[in-house]
Amino acid sequence: MRLSADDLKGGYALSCQTVVEGDLEIFVPPQEEITRHLTTEKTAAKVSVPFEYDWRVHQTVAKYFVEIEPPTLADNTDDLARLERELARAYDLRDLDAPLAILRTLARTLRDAEWRVTVVIDRGGARPRIVDILPGDQTLSLYGAAVDIGTTTVTVYLVDLFTGEVVETAADYNGQIKRGEDVISRIVFASKGNGLVELQSLVAQTINKLVERATLRRKCKPHEIYKMTLVGNSTMMHILLGLPPEQIRLTPYITTLNHPPTVLATELNLNIHPEAPVDCLPGVASYMGADITAGVLSSGTHDTDKVTLFLDIGTNGEMVLGTREWLVSCACSAGPAFEGAGVFHGMRATTGAIEEVYINTQTYEPTYRVIGGGKACGLCGSGLISLIAEMFITGVTDKAGNINLTLPTPRVRTGEHGAEYVIAWAAESDTGADIVITKPDVDNLLRAKAAIYAGYVMLAHSVGMTLKDVEQMLIGGSFGQYLNIEKAIEIGLLPDLPWERFHFLGNTAARGAYMALLRRDARDDIAAIAKKMTYLELAADNAFNDQFMAALFLPHTDLTQFESVRKVLQAAE
Amino acid sequence: MRLSADDLKGGYALSCQTVVEGDLEIFVPPQEEITRHLTTEKTAAKVSVPFEYDWRVHQTVAKYFVEIEPPTLADNTDDLARLERELARAYDLRDLDAPLAILRTLARTLRDAEWRVTVVIDRGGARPRIVDILPGDQTLSLYGAAVDIGTTTVTVYLVDLFTGEVVETAADYNGQIKRGEDVISRIVFASKGNGLVELQSLVAQTINKLVERATLRRKCKPHEIYKMTLVGNSTMMHILLGLPPEQIRLTPYITTLNHPPTVLATELNLNIHPEAPVDCLPGVASYMGADITAGVLSSGTHDTDKVTLFLDIGTNGEMVLGTREWLVSCACSAGPAFEGAGVFHGMRATTGAIEEVYINTQTYEPTYRVIGGGKACGLCGSGLISLIAEMFITGVTDKAGNINLTLPTPRVRTGEHGAEYVIAWAAESDTGADIVITKPDVDNLLRAKAAIYAGYVMLAHSVGMTLKDVEQMLIGGSFGQYLNIEKAIEIGLLPDLPWERFHFLGNTAARGAYMALLRRDARDDIAAIAKKMTYLELAADNAFNDQFMAALFLPHTDLTQFESVRKVLQAAE
Repeated sequence: MRLSADDLKGGYALSCQTVVEGDLEIFVPPQEEITRHLTTEKTAAKVSVPFEYDWRVHQTVAKYFVEIEPPTLADNTDDLARLERELARAYDLRDLDAPLAILRTLARTLRDAEWRVTVVIDRGGARPRIVDILPGDQTLSLYGAAVDIGTTTVTVYLVDLFTGEVVETAADYNGQIKRGEDVISRIVFASKGNGLVELQSLVAQTINKLVERATLRRKCKPHEIYKMTLVGNSTMMHILLGLPPEQIRLTPYITTLNHPPTVLATELNLNIHPEAPVDCLPGVASYMGADITAGVLSSGTHDTDKVTLFLDIGTNGEMVLGTREWLVSCACSAGPAFEGAGVFHGMRATTGAIEEVYINTQTYEPTYRVIGGGKACGLCGSGLISLIAEMFITGVTDKAGNINLTLPTPRVRTGEHGAEYVIAWAAESDTGADIVITKPDVDNLLRAKAAIYAGYVMLAHSVGMTLKDVEQMLIGGSFGQYLNIEKAIEIGLLPDLPWERFHFLGNTAARGAYMALLRRDARDDIAAIAKKMTYLELAADNAFNDQFMAALFLPHTDLTQFESVRKVLQAAE
Repeated sequence: MRLSADDLKGGYALSCQTVVEGDLEIFVPPQEEITRHLTTEKTAAKVSVPFEYDWRVHQTVAKYFVEIEPPTLADNTDDLARLERELARAYDLRDLDAPLAILRTLARTLRDAEWRVTVVIDRGGARPRIVDILPGDQTLSLYGAAVDIGTTTVTVYLVDLFTGEVVETAADYNGQIKRGEDVISRIVFASKGNGLVELQSLVAQTINKLVERATLRRKCKPHEIYKMTLVGNSTMMHILLGLPPEQIRLTPYITTLNHPPTVLATELNLNIHPEAPVDCLPGVASYMGADITAGVLSSGTHDTDKVTLFLDIGTNGEMVLGTREWLVSCACSAGPAFEGAGVFHGMRATTGAIEEVYINTQTYEPTYRVIGGGKACGLCGSGLISLIAEMFITGVTDKAGNINLTLPTPRVRTGEHGAEYVIAWAAESDTGADIVITKPDVDNLLRAKAAIYAGYVMLAHSVGMTLKDVEQMLIGGSFGQYLNIEKAIEIGLLPDLPWERFHFLGNTAARGAYMALLRRDARDDIAAIAKKMTYLELAADNAFNDQFMAALFLPHTDLTQFESVRKVLQAAE
């Protein structure tokens, strides 16, 4: 981002270019603050139980009520053995592990409860483990939580483990955002001083806040949550687990681990029951994390006969091509352009964002729709796609993204950063300034979409296919929900397939975490997906670079790959 | 203990009978302080490897050196999987557990060590677990520690786990002593406020100090200790584990557990390697702890065809009767009289203690031996036994323990606490006062020995035997080392068996912990002993009370049980 002459006059300076010479006060512009505190819970759509679920059969965490014979001089069996004896007799549970924290209160708990207790047991490990012992019969409720840690947004599903239903959802920005917008800046921050501990604490606090919010609404307590599954990209998983992530950004891009062990909530400072098992689901590589393996599960990519292309666009574009038989995947450093970052008037998809644009082919005057219906503040990802598609189709830009300054409209002009197109005049904008898209913005967006498209081609070629062979394309991530397919194809972000082949699935990562929370076999499926998936490392691949260069045009240098766009262009001529 | 007129004149008062009316300064008499800081390491006799030992076969903790292929873009397997791949290939080790603390430094450790590391693995649990990862080849040494937590003394054996040898021993008073001399006072202290946490910390500090002392002498570091086994009575084990011990002293005397789970050193604040497995060995009941089950193992009581009586006299008298086929046990509240407590001039077996006494049958003049050879300060346990036996045989007391004040010697007299016998006149004593034994002292000692003897009888009767059927008697605990068999029989503390049937074994508890440290099957043997052992609860047993009353005489009301003593008495008449 560069500053305009107005900004400079207004006293603004780029902090990255500024030498600090004395004490200084930092303030964050109010728009950013408000944006960051706005929850995106509306994006967590209504979730239904995804498969047949019977907690007695499928659930690893369970509650058992026992009435224990009180001890006498004639039967002086110790407390723990008495409890174990009854659990074996009534429920055939044997060889239990019991954590010290539970044993330290066992004598008191049993006597206070007059030897009638509910035992919470985790059957997910090598041996069943006592998680909690509660007074009396408390077998009426059992909660778990599924969590998606996005680089930007954290989503928590509170789940009734008896019915399998998501009873509450809560989402908010990842508290780490204030230490860096993207994965790379988080890794850099984690590598310095106490950075890793701080980032771990920030994401744990975000999760804790969301858990508190969800349990408050449900009128239960965070301590009643006895199991948690989590997904996220490999950097998010490393930071949550307190594993240093620096090798993720250094050649040859190696994670400490892709299959994290199950840990206890207390080890990660998560405020659910401290002895609750916390399962960070397995990923594949540094840039192919559990968010994608879980997404493959919940999208069904791994379980279909159709050749399926699964895409999760966020800060990175991660994609998987496959069928029931095989899976190949890759990640493209698309950058955060589609999240509004690195674009002069870009912003997230919240109130005031232009989310759709039409340009009149004769007058080049735009019409646009603003989220919330008020005045425009900037452009979000879907707005940018829509805008670039319209600019291209109407000839405001050529296929290289150059803005045609010869057009007979004041909307095209040379600004601070070169050629630009004005979407909204200052009078109609909420910021009091013209809202524009500049040549550098277009270039950024072209690079992002080119990286993603090149990824599709690399995946298809790796299995001897072309994109025409894709029988369905499944799109995960909240971004997808607002995407206009036609326009995304026009700019070459999506491949040119019949529209009915595209399906938007919402938060596939969170849904995968939820499925793994419910059923052990679903969790095992994710591990199997991670194992089966071939990962293409594109970083050092010249073929990828060739494909990327070819895709840097609108929609592509090779128009035979975009037959539908060719027709539209022909019609426009 | 009561105060003499001289003491009262000197300004002494009993603190338990005194109301504090203002600020006061407490000082501990120097003799007590010195005594407490004297280590009893000399009692930890030279220990030899007790059985055939091959660490490759018997040891649960082991070190493995691996050279790992560094990662490349073509082989981007994660760090943990690379390590596991190499451990599987070179050593057939699979399905490893790895604690978070190790994983958090894995990336750094592997790279700093240039992919050549030594992995410490604990194979003692359900799955092998990584305990530590060290740079380079560090397979030359491997240490463990065996610990006996006595109510009074803590003993640590530092063990070379490759050779199986005890390379250093260290012993000191249990730091909890300042919060109570015996088990009951510790339980009471633990039940109040922060008492349990304080006592846990005190014993952990004692162990840490001893570990430091032993490793310093060995020129290694506490962190190089990768395994610890511990024994102690059930109260000591509860406190170490942070389990509230109060139920141990309340009817029906129930422990939280008798078979503690293996925990990590860090959970108990033990300063060995934080991830080292710490195994508190199993006991049987509130008053039949791991010190005795381990003692049964190391004494071989569980593995002989001879009918064997195993005794460990400390504050409690715990005993086991059995053979290879069966084991019965009981505990008698003997009290600490044989440790010198509750006796007017009693003291521990340190410098200045009278440890042996002879009384002239004509003049009633005593001859005695003092530990260290200097002037006498008081009487230790073996001195007391010797003294009472002599007083009885020479007629200074009758069989009820009454001192005969009519004897023609100034050594018998009526003192502050009734009848007493003077062993040392003020001029020969280190304290400048007469050293005496009083009637209340004799009564205390008679009660202690009666409780122990009644225990023997109860055990024998429970299996339809008499004490004559005992083919060997094995005596553990440091006390036994200084015991004069003849005199112990004369007072009725030991049963009247041929002298060659008695064997003094030293610290059988520590030796059992050491055996369990070396071999997994020895540890399993202790668990099997605990399971097999029948425990007789004497607290509410009238038959025990009858036996106790009958044994309150010298040597016993029933002289047919003490044929050898009858002969001595006849000869003396």
